Amino acid sequence: MSDPTPGWEWEERGRPPTLFRRFGFERYGATRDFLDALAALSEETGMHPQNINFGTTYVNVTLEPTDGKAIDDTVRAFAARIDALVAGSN
Amino acid sequence: MSDPTPGWEWEERGRPPTLFRRFGFERYGATRDFLDALAALSEETGMHPQNINFGTTYVNVTLEPTDGKAIDDTVRAFAARIDALVAGSN
Repeated sequence: MSDPTPGWEWEERGRPPTLFRRFGFERYGATRDFLDALAALSEETGMHPQNINFGTTYVNVTLEPTDGKAIDDTVRAFAARIDALVAGSN
Repeated sequence: MSDPTPGWEWEERGRPPTLFRRFGFERYGATRDFLDALAALSEETGMHPQNINFGTTYVNVTLEPTDGKAIDDTVRAFAARIDALVAGSN
């Protein structure tokens, strides 16, 4: 099947399964802008990444299914909105 | 010798050596407040944790020495100021 979330690594066999993506930035200011936008998106949607791991120039985002069982369209839509945050900041 | 940075795990043999501490919070709002305060502290001091790893109710902070060789008083002072952010939010 085609990849429904291009750019994200789909760990289908994980328990729970996850979507993972690494975002790189040229400097801390851009990293910080992305983190702030992601926090605002979480507050708007009520959805939170299971984990965010960052340093000065990168942010690793891990998403888990809302029901703990499978990556569904809700999670994929959240992933796409996270991608859009980066597109918007460039 | 006495522990100069109580509450932090000192990985002395790591390359580079690191200081690590996990901060737990009751809810996302408190987690977010701590992250915002930590970002403001980084901008004020020009010092950044090597890595920050967080979910909705925890933040793991890893500090590295500024010279890449040893945990010095500058890093310990930064760790103490991070601790103070939590004390201030409670």
